[in-house]
Amino acid sequence: MTLRAGVLGASGYGGAGLIERLRRHPEVELAALASRQYLGQRIDAAWPHLAGLLDLHFVDTDDAIAAADVLFCSTPHAATAPLVAAARAAGKQVIDLSADFRLDADAYATWYGVHPHPELIPEAVYGLPEFHRGELRGAAIVASPGCNATAATLALAPLAAEGLLGDLPVATIVTGVSGAGRALDLGLHHAELGENVRAYKVAGTHRHTGEIEINLGRVAAQGKDALTHGARDTVRLAFNPILVPMARGILATTVARPGRDGLSGAMLLALYRDFYAGDALVHVQDDLPQTKAVAGADRALVTVRYDERTGTVVALAAIDNLGKGAAGQAVQGFNVARGLPETLGLRLEGHWP
Amino acid sequence: MTLRAGVLGASGYGGAGLIERLRRHPEVELAALASRQYLGQRIDAAWPHLAGLLDLHFVDTDDAIAAADVLFCSTPHAATAPLVAAARAAGKQVIDLSADFRLDADAYATWYGVHPHPELIPEAVYGLPEFHRGELRGAAIVASPGCNATAATLALAPLAAEGLLGDLPVATIVTGVSGAGRALDLGLHHAELGENVRAYKVAGTHRHTGEIEINLGRVAAQGKDALTHGARDTVRLAFNPILVPMARGILATTVARPGRDGLSGAMLLALYRDFYAGDALVHVQDDLPQTKAVAGADRALVTVRYDERTGTVVALAAIDNLGKGAAGQAVQGFNVARGLPETLGLRLEGHWP
Amino acid sequence: MTLRAGVLGASGYGGAGLIERLRRHPEVELAALASRQYLGQRIDAAWPHLAGLLDLHFVDTDDAIAAADVLFCSTPHAATAPLVAAARAAGKQVIDLSADFRLDADAYATWYGVHPHPELIPEAVYGLPEFHRGELRGAAIVASPGCNATAATLALAPLAAEGLLGDLPVATIVTGVSGAGRALDLGLHHAELGENVRAYKVAGTHRHTGEIEINLGRVAAQGKDALTHGARDTVRLAFNPILVPMARGILATTVARPGRDGLSGAMLLALYRDFYAGDALVHVQDDLPQTKAVAGADRALVTVRYDERTGTVVALAAIDNLGKGAAGQAVQGFNVARGLPETLGLRLEGHWP
Amino acid sequence: MTLRAGVLGASGYGGAGLIERLRRHPEVELAALASRQYLGQRIDAAWPHLAGLLDLHFVDTDDAIAAADVLFCSTPHAATAPLVAAARAAGKQVIDLSADFRLDADAYATWYGVHPHPELIPEAVYGLPEFHRGELRGAAIVASPGCNATAATLALAPLAAEGLLGDLPVATIVTGVSGAGRALDLGLHHAELGENVRAYKVAGTHRHTGEIEINLGRVAAQGKDALTHGARDTVRLAFNPILVPMARGILATTVARPGRDGLSGAMLLALYRDFYAGDALVHVQDDLPQTKAVAGADRALVTVRYDERTGTVVALAAIDNLGKGAAGQAVQGFNVARGLPETLGLRLEGHWP
Repeated sequence: MTLRAGVLGASGYGGAGLIERLRRHPEVELAALASRQYLGQRIDAAWPHLAGLLDLHFVDTDDAIAAADVLFCSTPHAATAPLVAAARAAGKQVIDLSADFRLDADAYATWYGVHPHPELIPEAVYGLPEFHRGELRGAAIVASPGCNATAATLALAPLAAEGLLGDLPVATIVTGVSGAGRALDLGLHHAELGENVRAYKVAGTHRHTGEIEINLGRVAAQGKDALTHGARDTVRLAFNPILVPMARGILATTVARPGRDGLSGAMLLALYRDFYAGDALVHVQDDLPQTKAVAGADRALVTVRYDERTGTVVALAAIDNLGKGAAGQAVQGFNVARGLPETLGLRLEGHWP
Repeated sequence: MTLRAGVLGASGYGGAGLIERLRRHPEVELAALASRQYLGQRIDAAWPHLAGLLDLHFVDTDDAIAAADVLFCSTPHAATAPLVAAARAAGKQVIDLSADFRLDADAYATWYGVHPHPELIPEAVYGLPEFHRGELRGAAIVASPGCNATAATLALAPLAAEGLLGDLPVATIVTGVSGAGRALDLGLHHAELGENVRAYKVAGTHRHTGEIEINLGRVAAQGKDALTHGARDTVRLAFNPILVPMARGILATTVARPGRDGLSGAMLLALYRDFYAGDALVHVQDDLPQTKAVAGADRALVTVRYDERTGTVVALAAIDNLGKGAAGQAVQGFNVARGLPETLGLRLEGHWP
Repeated sequence: MTLRAGVLGASGYGGAGLIERLRRHPEVELAALASRQYLGQRIDAAWPHLAGLLDLHFVDTDDAIAAADVLFCSTPHAATAPLVAAARAAGKQVIDLSADFRLDADAYATWYGVHPHPELIPEAVYGLPEFHRGELRGAAIVASPGCNATAATLALAPLAAEGLLGDLPVATIVTGVSGAGRALDLGLHHAELGENVRAYKVAGTHRHTGEIEINLGRVAAQGKDALTHGARDTVRLAFNPILVPMARGILATTVARPGRDGLSGAMLLALYRDFYAGDALVHVQDDLPQTKAVAGADRALVTVRYDERTGTVVALAAIDNLGKGAAGQAVQGFNVARGLPETLGLRLEGHWP
Repeated sequence: MTLRAGVLGASGYGGAGLIERLRRHPEVELAALASRQYLGQRIDAAWPHLAGLLDLHFVDTDDAIAAADVLFCSTPHAATAPLVAAARAAGKQVIDLSADFRLDADAYATWYGVHPHPELIPEAVYGLPEFHRGELRGAAIVASPGCNATAATLALAPLAAEGLLGDLPVATIVTGVSGAGRALDLGLHHAELGENVRAYKVAGTHRHTGEIEINLGRVAAQGKDALTHGARDTVRLAFNPILVPMARGILATTVARPGRDGLSGAMLLALYRDFYAGDALVHVQDDLPQTKAVAGADRALVTVRYDERTGTVVALAAIDNLGKGAAGQAVQGFNVARGLPETLGLRLEGHWP
């Protein structure tokens, strides 16, 4: 039976990605799109690429929750938890792309503030299916990961599982501008950001830092098939994001110093291949990954190198921040939660160029 | 029964577009990919975005022709006709993306040189399905149009059908760099073309000029459902292409001066809507089209304006030069030729941003 | 004696260009920068590239007018005329980059609205020094041209002077995004405009249309050394601007149909070379011009081609919209008005890449 | 008396930067430009932005050496040392932008191979004027630094001087494509690199790694005013470069873990300001630096942050890889070596946008 899907925050980039995937998803009917900014307007007012394709107008969140069996929330953190509560009160499943259910209440308080609905946190399963496939089945709330957190976690998790993270891994994220969202901002204008590279929220001030540390700590303590609310080790990460003139894509370049003898590039590559062997949306390769190879796609490309001179491991992951980093991963989480084939409605290959 | 498809020129951008579409096409098995440059190598040597997805190596053209029921040729003009001849001799259907079967022998001689296989020209049907849907059914050779020709023809054809082209319509094509192909060229380097705009082959020296004139002349003489080898009026076009720093996309801005009273923007828009009413891959809209709205998609977006002050019509069309301008249109032509649903395996919506 | 210069609208892109040139100008002291938005803030609040270089804070327009001998106005049309009036009342010279003094009162009413200070129009000389060098000497108000108007006028003026414009020349301007200014606009975000091409204000709705027609009409009637308020022929132009993902640069591609026999490309090129022989900032060349060759520079590159097949002339001009199209031309106009060497403080060569 | 300057490798990007600066340098006459690829051609065959401005043709290296008092070598490593030897044999001063005289013979052997002219190494002074101003005066060979080395060294040197580098600093360089040079390469095509980010030569395989380690080791041992051939400490660096779709610019993001209590951001910023107090071309600022703020300019922008949570220092530097990273720095080194004002012929402010 076809599931009716609603998208909250449907006029943001995450929303576009969800619409693009859900309208082609064979088990889903796109029932309602909510947007405060475009309320009442036809969908092509926000999305020129959908002109003439979808006969839908933007509605408010109440109507969308009423009209759908499953809600995809692509709304800002803090504003999302109340929407999730409303959807849960109406008995609807939620796939939440915001940060509101990714962390436990303590960690949330550290990075975001007091959680508005802590009573719902136990219902949430962290939606990185590669690590939580089992417990995602039937989850009431899927807490879909952040884009930076996805990239850095996929790059470093195999090291975490083997105790090879060392003391303080360093992750540098180079990210496209769609990650900054669609709100008006002079710094995101083409004339200002084109031919420009700038760091932002460096030195541990970016909120995804905590999410990555928790992900890695969980894998370090429990191994790959970790439980969201299970044990975790303490991991500290030096995390710095850099904005570059590109619409979509993230490259995570991570450096770890395991402090262990006898490592080699070949051994690490084998470790990574083994770690992600069953994962259709993570491809471990010899070549250094590039973001264009996953633009418009829902896969991650990962590789690893070893520098004998300094005893450091360099692990890299490339994703589309709006694919495996947002809408693609949300639909993947939805598929797993519903017992559907994991890649249904997703796109493996994107396009080139 | 699934058709086995072969792609010649599979390491060029047209080839990538064909692989991306054909591997998802429900009635097609991707049987063979030919490339001289990458002969014997695995597909990801040419296409990083397909790493781990397709277990194919590049073969030579003979092997590809032998292995396939239908050949998609994305090879250079002049070099393609002999491949088409070989494929036809082996009884295979051909979807030809090169220029070799788009023109009759005289026009080919004017723009390209002596045709190497004029005896095959009568077998070819021009593959702009919006105008040749009927005669494409069962065609042995589908001559898929050029990207610039597609955009300019779609913009101006409704005027041609109504006798509104005036004396010398002017078409300016602004095109992304993938249209220039993948051969090494300093002028296509990012450092040289980024933040750069340059005209090329202006003043009627671009070969697509003739193709557009013929298309418009055919519609002027026969109306929309024209026969490839039927009558055509003489049309002259001032055509100038401009290269801009963008990977994919074409915007055709055309100006015609019908020399007729009583025109209005609303009337012209209605005319355009009526003209393309049955065409799933041409969307006529009020808004000015932008190329991003069709990036990664196989549709064209078209609109028209009237300038009372000067009595000129401005008609615009946006396509993805690799979608509706190449691989998408080729698969559309294949679908029509085979009696399959016209948009099977195609992508209507692309993605944003 | 050094002249004290003030810049109004100093936090916009035109303002940046003026600051960059005037701070290096040997006859100028940069006395005051006015900005409403950044009032009271240090200059690097608006201009990161000037951090640590200029010890100036933004002031209001009154203070700037009081502090300067000459005012450069890079403020919006309609809002500028009152500022010019105030500066003139205080006896200051004005170099106006807005549209307010480019047209006579009638033409201004057609394209912009009722002129707020028609009594000052006779004081203004149109600041395209190539055509008005003589009358610019000592001008109280220099009306610096629009960027699109500069490019299209330079491309077509030699034809106008020889009666070769034909009936309705067609000008297509491909322009970088800095021409749209610095006000917040979703359509100018990098994620929206990157990898995107879109037309805007087509079909004669762009206000520069009138300015170009007047320029060409003046040259047609008076020849190259035209008087701003002298006779002019009626010229009609079909003008369409197109926005592309590039920060700075304009390429004008113009098509004229002289309706005269015996033309050739070589003859036209000689005509253009002769026409611009004494102009240091207009270079006529054989090669098609590209915008990168003038990025950061204050020159225009021009060429011309003839298409015998259709009897059309294609003339092209490339400028930096912020150089020869704005700040560079304003300083050039200032130099001429003050009797200084014409290229003082200007940059001829820009940089590559 | 004006010095005659020759540029070897004048058709590469480093060469363009040198021509742009030297033609405006008040103490220099641009006497000869050498290029093997464009030998005998006019300068605009290689450089469209110089069309009509310089009446020079490319000559061979012998002629250039003969014609000049000082040679700027922007030629490949290994090929350059013999040219330097020839110039020195003719008694000419050399400003070498290649890697050939940046390292001592042992380090050169480690990173590049056997040095072809080790006897000349003692004549060379490392051309980072901020650290070698004294010994540069009168130097016969100025070994101008690598672009990545400049950015990373400027970011980390104040830490090195204070013993705050910790065990293994990590430097991530995000660089524009002009750093890869002008040789044909599919990976540098706009269609391949636009909207793409890719790492290259990661895990200590990039040759600039050694240069940075040596620079930092020298400052650690000798302090800021270090001698090229003086003592140095052993420093190890984890260095990873990342290529992004931008023509020019480098952002170095470096992470150090001093392992010392009592640090703060304010203290570190004061330390950096003090360290670079006398340097006109290094600006220490509160704001995070962005590459656009130095595009076309010859300055570096630097800042520093402290992350108390992890005890790490994050230091960032932005330069134009062709300005302070190549041609600008070479001219700065030349000025210092000749006793001229340090910023003569240089550009402090670039342009925005």
